[in-house]
Amino acid sequence: MSASDIPQKTWPSPEIVSDLAEVRKHAPLTHVLTNIVVTNWTANVLLAAGASPAMVIAEEEVSEFAAIASGMLINVGTITSFDAKSMKSAAIAAQKARTPWVLDPVAVGALKFRTEVAKELLQYKPTIIRGNASEILALAGAVGGGKGVDSTASSFDALPLAQELATRSEAVVAVSGEVDYITDGKETIAVPGGHIFMTKVTGVGCSLGALIASFLGVQKDPLRAAVSASAVFAIAGSRAAEKSSGTGSFAVTFLDELTNLGI
Amino acid sequence: MSASDIPQKTWPSPEIVSDLAEVRKHAPLTHVLTNIVVTNWTANVLLAAGASPAMVIAEEEVSEFAAIASGMLINVGTITSFDAKSMKSAAIAAQKARTPWVLDPVAVGALKFRTEVAKELLQYKPTIIRGNASEILALAGAVGGGKGVDSTASSFDALPLAQELATRSEAVVAVSGEVDYITDGKETIAVPGGHIFMTKVTGVGCSLGALIASFLGVQKDPLRAAVSASAVFAIAGSRAAEKSSGTGSFAVTFLDELTNLGI
Amino acid sequence: MSASDIPQKTWPSPEIVSDLAEVRKHAPLTHVLTNIVVTNWTANVLLAAGASPAMVIAEEEVSEFAAIASGMLINVGTITSFDAKSMKSAAIAAQKARTPWVLDPVAVGALKFRTEVAKELLQYKPTIIRGNASEILALAGAVGGGKGVDSTASSFDALPLAQELATRSEAVVAVSGEVDYITDGKETIAVPGGHIFMTKVTGVGCSLGALIASFLGVQKDPLRAAVSASAVFAIAGSRAAEKSSGTGSFAVTFLDELTNLGI
Repeated sequence: MSASDIPQKTWPSPEIVSDLAEVRKHAPLTHVLTNIVVTNWTANVLLAAGASPAMVIAEEEVSEFAAIASGMLINVGTITSFDAKSMKSAAIAAQKARTPWVLDPVAVGALKFRTEVAKELLQYKPTIIRGNASEILALAGAVGGGKGVDSTASSFDALPLAQELATRSEAVVAVSGEVDYITDGKETIAVPGGHIFMTKVTGVGCSLGALIASFLGVQKDPLRAAVSASAVFAIAGSRAAEKSSGTGSFAVTFLDELTNLGI
Repeated sequence: MSASDIPQKTWPSPEIVSDLAEVRKHAPLTHVLTNIVVTNWTANVLLAAGASPAMVIAEEEVSEFAAIASGMLINVGTITSFDAKSMKSAAIAAQKARTPWVLDPVAVGALKFRTEVAKELLQYKPTIIRGNASEILALAGAVGGGKGVDSTASSFDALPLAQELATRSEAVVAVSGEVDYITDGKETIAVPGGHIFMTKVTGVGCSLGALIASFLGVQKDPLRAAVSASAVFAIAGSRAAEKSSGTGSFAVTFLDELTNLGI
Repeated sequence: MSASDIPQKTWPSPEIVSDLAEVRKHAPLTHVLTNIVVTNWTANVLLAAGASPAMVIAEEEVSEFAAIASGMLINVGTITSFDAKSMKSAAIAAQKARTPWVLDPVAVGALKFRTEVAKELLQYKPTIIRGNASEILALAGAVGGGKGVDSTASSFDALPLAQELATRSEAVVAVSGEVDYITDGKETIAVPGGHIFMTKVTGVGCSLGALIASFLGVQKDPLRAAVSASAVFAIAGSRAAEKSSGTGSFAVTFLDELTNLGI
């Protein structure tokens, strides 16, 4: 398969516009268990796109909240052993309550503890797995070339193993990169766009994982939900980059573009 | 009582201008125990307004620090069982040292664990309770309609129970909404203003709770301190919204407006 | 010694320009253990300057990661007893693997628990200690005048004890202030510049500590690494202040200036 054989989706494809409009209309309650670097940014991204984020992390509360949320994200970026317990409880509760959820295996492959936790979380059937190429390769059992949270493989290179991982885990797999690839193992869709600044502002990828969880609250087809959220990010990133002088103004303008997209 | 019967206060009422000038002059040391989503934003809000924030959260340190701070905030937004212990110690120390403190019962009513913690914290006599209508209703023992951190009731609807809560708890109660209502059970003041973007940037309400704690460091009348801080937020929010293209630029401009207000 | 006797270094001194270029070229993996207020900001500062930050904090992971990182920061700003364990493990691992590391003793002197932890961490031989005057004085065993995280002494006043601390600890000591002083006990260099807004945006000093750790990944002379990172901050701060209307736009513009410096 060559990259040009893969069908592409971009804003303003009608399904994407419609999915974003549904998010704005229903403000899906999104349960976010994420890393301490990106909590604020992630909440602001979801609010700008019209979703309703809630970071609930206590072991005493996660099961209750996972059951009432419309979608959930588990991101292991700064996981501790306490977080690991909460995340496991949350994943179990989400599976039981049929709350769709997204697993973001940040830096899996580079570090043993989180790699084990992420593999254990896979048992509870995430609806979608989102990561960069190195993370997806590592989770798929291959030897990744990961360096911390930055990917050293391209998203296209990771595609064959991403497809295998999707088939084996029954999750849609979204590989972020210069082009995002989203696959359920059979069908694969490419989402081009975005800008290099998206890798120079911390948490852009992490917040995409959260936004995918918001889209799952209004769009039950996980392949489509992941494609729509990724395409929303790509267009907001492209537009923001044109108006930015550096990574600081890019982050601000990205939120402004999300605020106004499709309105 | 109709909404139009309630006296209003807005910037630049002389007491509000004077209270902000005192904050800038004395830079009150404000002990902030808050949720992990809004720590950075809250610190920047307090610094822009001239206060001196310090996030001290270890059980080993909170009692020592609550005793030397001019004011304190406890916000249960992402509370864990470890936080709950620190918050209890901090509240006890604040009460003992007569450090005025603010309780922000984020998402109380929606989740059992934090609801119990918040009710326990009430024992240690917060000077002010700040929340949205759903949170205040829940804390007052009514059945709230809370959805995560967003309110589904209006601040005016919550006023009768807010007044009861104020009387029963001997705290001033500040209900945030399109109009903020601040009451000690007898006297009630309305603070109009602000902008819808204040609900679309995470932590604006949380940081108002912290700023009220800063104002308590220079203004011993809690009703007046809460009114002044709320009015400062309302005018900064209104002015920032006029210059903003979305939630990203709103957050930035809000800090700029706070930096320059009354100077 | 008078302040005018101390040699100054500022951007665009060739060594500083060269050190920043090396950071951009090699993107040194920087292990950041810092406080919960400044994680996001710190990551964005390092990314804007071309480094590769990774916040890895679990006791299960820190030793593994400290050994593969190019440089490490330990900042005790919001330390808990759990963090203290991780930080000790990380420091031991860094010393063993010869990973250069920076200690930032936030609010040491003002609070007992962290003061003890910081003194214990000194055993594991930080390459550089960075703090404001009060923190450096406290760590040097003097009675500090610290008020939370803000310094009440000037950086020049702290210089004699900073030089003693450098000699005794065998670390380079960087005292931040209106003028930054960097000393190894024998040689001392002054880095002027910056702007008062750098004290009104939370975490500017903390992120300088992290950036020094990044520079240590490409520049093995710790005195020079600290001087270069400090001079990069000073020029970015001076330039950003000229274009800012308040602390909000200052923070954004500071990141933009870092993005573009020397390119």
